[in-house]
Amino acid sequence: MVKVIIIGSGNVAQHLIAAFQNPQNLGTEIELVQVFSRQIGSVSQLLDSDHITNDLDTLAEADLYIIAVSDDAIAAISSKLLFKNRLVVHTSGSVPLNALDDNNRKGVFYPLQTFTKNKAVDFRTIPICLESENATDFQLLEKVAKAISDKTFAINSEQRKALHIAAVFVNNFTNHLYQIGQEICLENQVPFEILKPLIAETANKIMLLSPEEAQTGPAKRNDTDTIEAHEAFLSNQNHLTIYKTLTQSIQQNGKKL
Amino acid sequence: MVKVIIIGSGNVAQHLIAAFQNPQNLGTEIELVQVFSRQIGSVSQLLDSDHITNDLDTLAEADLYIIAVSDDAIAAISSKLLFKNRLVVHTSGSVPLNALDDNNRKGVFYPLQTFTKNKAVDFRTIPICLESENATDFQLLEKVAKAISDKTFAINSEQRKALHIAAVFVNNFTNHLYQIGQEICLENQVPFEILKPLIAETANKIMLLSPEEAQTGPAKRNDTDTIEAHEAFLSNQNHLTIYKTLTQSIQQNGKKL
Ligand SMILES: NC(=O)c1ccc[n+]([C@@H]2O[C@H](COP(=O)([O-])OP(=O)(O)OC[C@H]3O[C@@H](n4cnc5c(N)ncnc54)[C@H](OP(=O)(O)O)[C@@H]3O)[C@@H](O)[C@H]2O)c1
Ligand SMILES: NC(=O)c1ccc[n+]([C@@H]2O[C@H](COP(=O)([O-])OP(=O)(O)OC[C@H]3O[C@@H](n4cnc5c(N)ncnc54)[C@H](OP(=O)(O)O)[C@@H]3O)[C@@H](O)[C@H]2O)c1
Repeated sequence: MVKVIIIGSGNVAQHLIAAFQNPQNLGTEIELVQVFSRQIGSVSQLLDSDHITNDLDTLAEADLYIIAVSDDAIAAISSKLLFKNRLVVHTSGSVPLNALDDNNRKGVFYPLQTFTKNKAVDFRTIPICLESENATDFQLLEKVAKAISDKTFAINSEQRKALHIAAVFVNNFTNHLYQIGQEICLENQVPFEILKPLIAETANKIMLLSPEEAQTGPAKRNDTDTIEAHEAFLSNQNHLTIYKTLTQSIQQNGKKL
Repeated sequence: MVKVIIIGSGNVAQHLIAAFQNPQNLGTEIELVQVFSRQIGSVSQLLDSDHITNDLDTLAEADLYIIAVSDDAIAAISSKLLFKNRLVVHTSGSVPLNALDDNNRKGVFYPLQTFTKNKAVDFRTIPICLESENATDFQLLEKVAKAISDKTFAINSEQRKALHIAAVFVNNFTNHLYQIGQEICLENQVPFEILKPLIAETANKIMLLSPEEAQTGPAKRNDTDTIEAHEAFLSNQNHLTIYKTLTQSIQQNGKKL
């Protein structure tokens, strides 16, 4: 049996706890033995109270400690652990492996997904990016990750940084484009609902086509009449700047090919 | 029976033909009587050859003519029709109603979706934006639209222009962000596959949360350390410009609230 302890009670911690306890994932050789939460109440709906502690000093013995707390608290928490030479990992896309304290063996267990409290996700489809200092630890991480997900990847800190930045583009920035779409709708008394099937299909397409193949629109066609008409229509300066920047980028792309 | 004729054989025409012929939509009072295609072969897999013509002058009589050809061919085709005072509509998001020839009654039948040849879509979920010159024609358009879709909207030319621009943001520009995500992955030897579940979930979230509620990331948190690290990492000047522009826009948003 591989014993796992989760430190934290936020979004990621709660989804991890649920995944390890999902009946579909039992029968694997992984056991979630304890969770640390500053406030016991945050996770008491997820597991029995004798498996929860709010005192770092009383953490049980385990094969793997997963620190799933805010990025800026990871280093401090890892340095407060009283034991030595055990495997301690964090779940962050942007914190390097070496932010973890030298007292223990270091690793990363980064689930590349955007989690929302109270919104279930199918953890088995979530890519987990793994990093460790040696092959034995990697095997352990992989065993644990495979217990809850079908997709595990060896990703070093440099690659993880790149992935995290790419994730900012396809997640944070994309969501901001949805918001601009909504703003344009509001300004023109059109329900934003009308755009939702298009948003869904745009994401669907990328599962089958490459982004180059899926690209359409006035910028791609170099349709300058339509581009000029759109620019004249956009009275919001911020929307206009973004329209021009992205249109230019798509047009440059066309020239590259 | 309402008789419909489709003029065109591209993406939109083919999906419309399939929708009108979908057994699920039969029993409605709509009949697709004929299709015009410059090349008969383009649609011969979709319907019997005696329902296809490549000669505009031999178009049958119908209650509704749907012109689904390239934007810049709509005006010319509508002026070549030999009959008068019938209802003729186009399917474009960006062409005004008045681009249609004065010889016939004008309207718009704009399905707001991105169509791909050979990729089936569930037409019933696609919003159809309708416009006409009078109430009787609108009722007819609505009847036809409801035969193939559950979502019909009255949208005038100004609103449709706004919707089309909003669609450029949530579809064309979003797809371009996917492409940048892929480029960053390629440059750093990471498979783009890893980002696909994130792309799917980002679109999923917007079905339940508003864009404001769904927004996360370093720009939203005003996490200047991470933003600076990302900017230092991005060696591609074009990626950097887009990163800065969208980060600034998200930060300004925070200040507005
Ligand atoms: N959210 C995502 O979609 C996502 C995806 C992949 C990876 N990650 C990474 O996963 C980690 C956790 O993110 P999250 O979204 O779960 O964050 P979150 O929902 O904001 O939760 C943060 C957790 O950290 C705890 N915490 C913060 N400061 C602490 C401190 N000084 N001492 C002890 N505990 C502290 C919080 O405790 P309290 O509840 O008591 O305040 C809470 O349990 C981060 O490294 C993040 O980068 C997040
Ligand atoms: N694609 C979308 O996702 C989408 C979504 C909503 C609305 N629309 C609108 O729907 C309309 C059709 O778009 P589409 O995507 O179906 O275009 P498409 O796939 O490029 O097909 C264009 C069609 O127009 C015909 N055509 C072009 N020039 C012509 C001319 N001078 N005379 C006769 N026929 C001509 C083409 O005939 P040949 O095949 O013989 O060349 C073809 O059948 C446009 O107004 C577009 O804005 C498109």
